[in-house]
Amino acid sequence: MSLPSAFDGGVVSALGAFEAKSVKHVFFVACGGSLSIMYPAKFLLDQHSPLPSDVYNAAEFVARGPRSLDKNSLVVLCSMTGTTKETTAAAEFARTRGATTIGLTVDPASPLARTVDHVVGFEAPYTTGVPIDAKNSNYSRIYQIVMGLVALTGGENLIETLITSVLALQPAIDRAQVALAPMFEDYAPRFAKQDVVYTVASGASYGAAYSFAICVLMEMQWINSQAIHANEFFHGPFEVLDKDRAFILMKGLDSTRRLEERADEFLHRFGSAENILVLDAEKLDLSGIDPQFRGNLVPLIFFDTLWRFAYKIADLRKHAMLEGRRYMKKISY
Amino acid sequence: MSLPSAFDGGVVSALGAFEAKSVKHVFFVACGGSLSIMYPAKFLLDQHSPLPSDVYNAAEFVARGPRSLDKNSLVVLCSMTGTTKETTAAAEFARTRGATTIGLTVDPASPLARTVDHVVGFEAPYTTGVPIDAKNSNYSRIYQIVMGLVALTGGENLIETLITSVLALQPAIDRAQVALAPMFEDYAPRFAKQDVVYTVASGASYGAAYSFAICVLMEMQWINSQAIHANEFFHGPFEVLDKDRAFILMKGLDSTRRLEERADEFLHRFGSAENILVLDAEKLDLSGIDPQFRGNLVPLIFFDTLWRFAYKIADLRKHAMLEGRRYMKKISY
Repeated sequence: MSLPSAFDGGVVSALGAFEAKSVKHVFFVACGGSLSIMYPAKFLLDQHSPLPSDVYNAAEFVARGPRSLDKNSLVVLCSMTGTTKETTAAAEFARTRGATTIGLTVDPASPLARTVDHVVGFEAPYTTGVPIDAKNSNYSRIYQIVMGLVALTGGENLIETLITSVLALQPAIDRAQVALAPMFEDYAPRFAKQDVVYTVASGASYGAAYSFAICVLMEMQWINSQAIHANEFFHGPFEVLDKDRAFILMKGLDSTRRLEERADEFLHRFGSAENILVLDAEKLDLSGIDPQFRGNLVPLIFFDTLWRFAYKIADLRKHAMLEGRRYMKKISY
Repeated sequence: MSLPSAFDGGVVSALGAFEAKSVKHVFFVACGGSLSIMYPAKFLLDQHSPLPSDVYNAAEFVARGPRSLDKNSLVVLCSMTGTTKETTAAAEFARTRGATTIGLTVDPASPLARTVDHVVGFEAPYTTGVPIDAKNSNYSRIYQIVMGLVALTGGENLIETLITSVLALQPAIDRAQVALAPMFEDYAPRFAKQDVVYTVASGASYGAAYSFAICVLMEMQWINSQAIHANEFFHGPFEVLDKDRAFILMKGLDSTRRLEERADEFLHRFGSAENILVLDAEKLDLSGIDPQFRGNLVPLIFFDTLWRFAYKIADLRKHAMLEGRRYMKKISY
């Protein structure tokens, strides 16, 4: 079979350049925000394919050197700028083991792009300040890689459904921005005063919770955080909950939603509604996104809308977002 | 081949009851503190075998329902009391898919023990208050399962070396308690006043960092926390570091040590030494533990010694450890 032309050219070219059926193991490798998209990528693969896969921080991946990494491995890496040293080193390491490497980056001339076998480009608003269409986002591209791989290895062919859904994503994000704006306006003044804000999610949404916790709250606002898995919440973390504690809960539409619903009930039982910001995908207008992919795509809606919430908090705290960092891209380390 | 009698009887019996070579995928499944031992178990398997494996929270595992879970899967579950509902449900779910299940628990009459195909017992000081020998701990038993599986599936046979090492573990813990006591005495008064204490580790030690963060600091002391992966630290979380911020850093002896060393340098460059508690395995007397397993076994030394540190903090905060919880085992949820 061949992939349809509606697929991203980079994805079609990458997946066409090797024998997909020879892939026995997939490694999703990156750092920080780019690592966060690997969790939903693995979730999607787990749902649709028996192919084993791992998600690793790039430096961990190299230092660990898994035995299963060999010529039958596909290693999918991502670095927005393509300059993340650990990720480029991971691509080099994977190639010495004979693995096939695909690198996602916005810059086709970057070190990562020059190191991998196949480059898949994407767009990110954070690099240019110019709004993008979510069909060109990292989520869209990595999901195309995963579902392309599923189809090419004998799994269900849901490529057209994915494409249709991805094309409907940006309008859904735009509608969600409007729908959620009043809630963000309401919650921002309280959250801006918090020293600790936890994020909670499971399944396909866990990566978005992780990214918001470490790359936005901690990195850009110096707010203490942790992305708590919605069920792990009940096995320790919930003990920090009281009426003053702030949480952001993502209620997605994937098969793990009931875990997030249980966390929601507990949070509202012992916390204060005014300190618990709930993003509920059931309340969003997701027209055009096929039900089969809603659970996979709502995390990007959560993340993009929360980004606006973060800017509101930043204004109130008088702490700039990207420019407010003290170490990242400010000093060498 | 057959397993030596020095192996735990439960492990020998479990591994002898099915055809190890038919195992194509291993799932390590649990919740909270029991989930924390699954990370080092997977690390050990990754080092020694190409067998693919996943670590999942038990509720996530069931809700996700990975495609790869089938009759050729081995699912290793753990619940100290054997009463964790999600873990028992995960065992039931795995069995409906035809997988082989091994359950680790201290109670052979517990729901988990009654649900799995094979029970492996262990001892835990937290249930009885009576000190145990670490050779009977969950770490020891799950490592025996992993290395037994490695040997039985055609990998290197390091069983005797593991046994020797595990027998030397409790004396090493006892020596570490003595060696680290003055540092804990020094740091406890400052850490007792902190609202946020992060733990940092990588590789085999990540699970111990996770467990200390969520089960001890958050659950038993209501101190905000996150287990930060030592390299992920540089991709967001490090921005919360200042002279007042408290961190516990584990420097282990596995192949990822250099990640922890890099975090150590950064922490001391921009933080205060008095707020950064470093557990450095290189400074411990590990006599009798084979160098091949030192990296795998030091996390239990870190965790057991930190447990004493936690009790010191609890005394200073006048917040009881197990009895101080407000939700867990106090209310139904």
